[in-house]
Amino acid sequence: MRLSRYFLPTLKETPAEAQIASHRLMLRAGMIRQGAAGIYSWLPLGLKVLKKIEAIVREEQDSAGAIELLMPTIQSADLWVESGRYDDYGKEMLRIEDRHERQMLFGPTNEELITDIFRREIKSYKDLPKNLYHIQWKFRDEIRPRFGVMRGREFLMKDAYSFDLDAESAVKSYNAMFVAYLRTFARMGLRAIPMRADTGPIGGDLSHEFIVLAETGESEVFFDAGFDEFDPMAVEAAVGSDLQPVVDQWTSLYAATDEMHDPDSTEAKATKLVQGRGIEVGHIFFFGDKYSKPMKAEVQTSDGQSVPVQMGSYGIGVSRLMGAIIEASHDENGIIWPEAVAPFKVGLMNLTTKDEGCTAACEKLYAKLGAAGVDVLYDDRNVGAGQKFANMDLIGLPWQVALGSRGLKNGVVELKNRATGEREEVAIGEVVAKLT
Amino acid sequence: MRLSRYFLPTLKETPAEAQIASHRLMLRAGMIRQGAAGIYSWLPLGLKVLKKIEAIVREEQDSAGAIELLMPTIQSADLWVESGRYDDYGKEMLRIEDRHERQMLFGPTNEELITDIFRREIKSYKDLPKNLYHIQWKFRDEIRPRFGVMRGREFLMKDAYSFDLDAESAVKSYNAMFVAYLRTFARMGLRAIPMRADTGPIGGDLSHEFIVLAETGESEVFFDAGFDEFDPMAVEAAVGSDLQPVVDQWTSLYAATDEMHDPDSTEAKATKLVQGRGIEVGHIFFFGDKYSKPMKAEVQTSDGQSVPVQMGSYGIGVSRLMGAIIEASHDENGIIWPEAVAPFKVGLMNLTTKDEGCTAACEKLYAKLGAAGVDVLYDDRNVGAGQKFANMDLIGLPWQVALGSRGLKNGVVELKNRATGEREEVAIGEVVAKLT
Repeated sequence: MRLSRYFLPTLKETPAEAQIASHRLMLRAGMIRQGAAGIYSWLPLGLKVLKKIEAIVREEQDSAGAIELLMPTIQSADLWVESGRYDDYGKEMLRIEDRHERQMLFGPTNEELITDIFRREIKSYKDLPKNLYHIQWKFRDEIRPRFGVMRGREFLMKDAYSFDLDAESAVKSYNAMFVAYLRTFARMGLRAIPMRADTGPIGGDLSHEFIVLAETGESEVFFDAGFDEFDPMAVEAAVGSDLQPVVDQWTSLYAATDEMHDPDSTEAKATKLVQGRGIEVGHIFFFGDKYSKPMKAEVQTSDGQSVPVQMGSYGIGVSRLMGAIIEASHDENGIIWPEAVAPFKVGLMNLTTKDEGCTAACEKLYAKLGAAGVDVLYDDRNVGAGQKFANMDLIGLPWQVALGSRGLKNGVVELKNRATGEREEVAIGEVVAKLT
Repeated sequence: MRLSRYFLPTLKETPAEAQIASHRLMLRAGMIRQGAAGIYSWLPLGLKVLKKIEAIVREEQDSAGAIELLMPTIQSADLWVESGRYDDYGKEMLRIEDRHERQMLFGPTNEELITDIFRREIKSYKDLPKNLYHIQWKFRDEIRPRFGVMRGREFLMKDAYSFDLDAESAVKSYNAMFVAYLRTFARMGLRAIPMRADTGPIGGDLSHEFIVLAETGESEVFFDAGFDEFDPMAVEAAVGSDLQPVVDQWTSLYAATDEMHDPDSTEAKATKLVQGRGIEVGHIFFFGDKYSKPMKAEVQTSDGQSVPVQMGSYGIGVSRLMGAIIEASHDENGIIWPEAVAPFKVGLMNLTTKDEGCTAACEKLYAKLGAAGVDVLYDDRNVGAGQKFANMDLIGLPWQVALGSRGLKNGVVELKNRATGEREEVAIGEVVAKLT
């Protein structure tokens, strides 16, 4: 992509309203713009990252055997009355009346709607287990939206719902998501620790939060130093394999958020405790028949009985993850994208646009990198080199390639690794090989 | 995908509420389920097709030089007051009040919001032209939603917005979209004819509707038989190339919807008129400064003047297209998917699940097709062969591969082309080669 044709409105100044690094950097790097309090437009650079995060989430859900569908944003209030949550949910639910004065709402979560879909179509134990998920925009009318996409009102969430005949099978479904979550966050370059959590308004008695460690995280967390030894990517989670040992390992060590932490407990005392800060990026629940019972989502067992299905739900804050990644990976000059979610792999800078030879060499390199399948953002604008370097550091692409008149004379570009800051001169003819 | 693990709730009976073929077939083929009037959940098979349609739309927008971003579903009412459309829009706009009693709405279209983004960031003619698009869920509170996804309330739309310094340049942006639309619909196997249209509530003085021809279309259309000779895929629309001759060709012949048709006009009389039925799938507008003037979206010209930008907008009904494709391509047994948008390329049926040898042969074939990159839906259920054949015809995958005990003895499968109905026996070892 040529920067002169792209839409990347970067800001030199730090916007006054932004209190945390990810919010500041997403505004400055031209990734988002606020439309109304807690509601954002995703500009092209931000959308590209959002889609990469979404793709990783989707791949790991698919690998874990979950099936994708898509529920609408607007729901009828009737189902929420049926489950008993319509009054419970309070003002965070965006309530809407349509032209025929029917009560509707913008879905903050989908337990009711998926339970309704399930009960209309699935009647037999033979069709179980099932795990259905979607990736859809949700709305929660936060009283004080803040921190950019970290606590917005309209946000993108992946939510999966599992349906099993009995609790034993439901725990297997829970474990599959547990392991998929470990893999999902690790693939984005994040260190996430599952912590036993309060079930809150979703309900149920088994629940874990996945907390990403970041110095600027929203809440204090306490965990065993032993988590350092665990490698989430070591787990190959084939559909149907027994994941209990993996879950046992990851839940064998002490880990608690501020609210759940008890420094005087035996477990906490037995631990080599590390204190840090964290950001919640995922939350999983097993809640049995909490929804299936009042909503009569029942299946026939092999001996002809009708029983309510055992359910769990599994959320990942897809748009929030972008904030978490930036909080975990930035420096004073800007964002440092892990390659798996970087909007472009390479930023190519023409440092001397007035030199026709230099421009021709840049154009040729841009074309060659494109032909080799490398996704490049090419800064072809007529602005100073200093501005180009500062912009590239700000938007944080993994690799920077700078070519100016001086380099051209020697037949070299300067190649910089954004994460390490290392620079090296590379012969122009070797750039493509180096980056593929 | 194994059908036993998938979620594909097909229906034998025709649902009473469905009046047109696409609505009936999408319900029967387990592609959608209604949540509330005109609001649908997309079940896995429907979502797969929706994503394929969306991908084609996206590719052609990108090829035409448009840049993707993503605006939120919920907008502040303020911008609509500023443009003067807040009162005009009437009850079709879903109006919402948030917890702080601020007036919000679920976007039915995005002229105001994109104009706001533009005016905050772009100040100079040097940054023009720009074409920004998104693919996002919209809501129009239709008084009587009907015909399934053809006239729903929550629907997926691609909307692009072009910004140019002057009308001459704006017409080039218009032409680029005109040609992109011809290509987009042709790639989905649709025959679409651009027809001069009324600009309605969007405004402006240049506008075309793209109408897909289908016997069951919603409106009557009249067009010159000469359109038969035109090939939309003959147009290679490189960014920046002069497309006026292509647009001139496609607008040189008479074409009008019922409302615009005048049988007594000179043009209509000079035409070899064909009468048919059609479905609107796209609509493009050039409306100059209708929004940029009241909203003060101005840029500096090269001689330092401030002028309002010249704008156009370009919509494609992405979810509606699915209905249009089915209306244009089905028979009495079900849907006939054009390969470009088919949810799976191949349906593999095990006709004798009780025969272990047959099951083993099917499993092997399924694995081999998957390894060759062929997307297969594998009917491994314990149900009768008749039900399997009927289901496959209903969901309309381009190719059916049937293997039973009898075929296995002779080492052959039956391969059926869904569109032509042709069947042939193919040696088991040659199936993969035949389908790749």
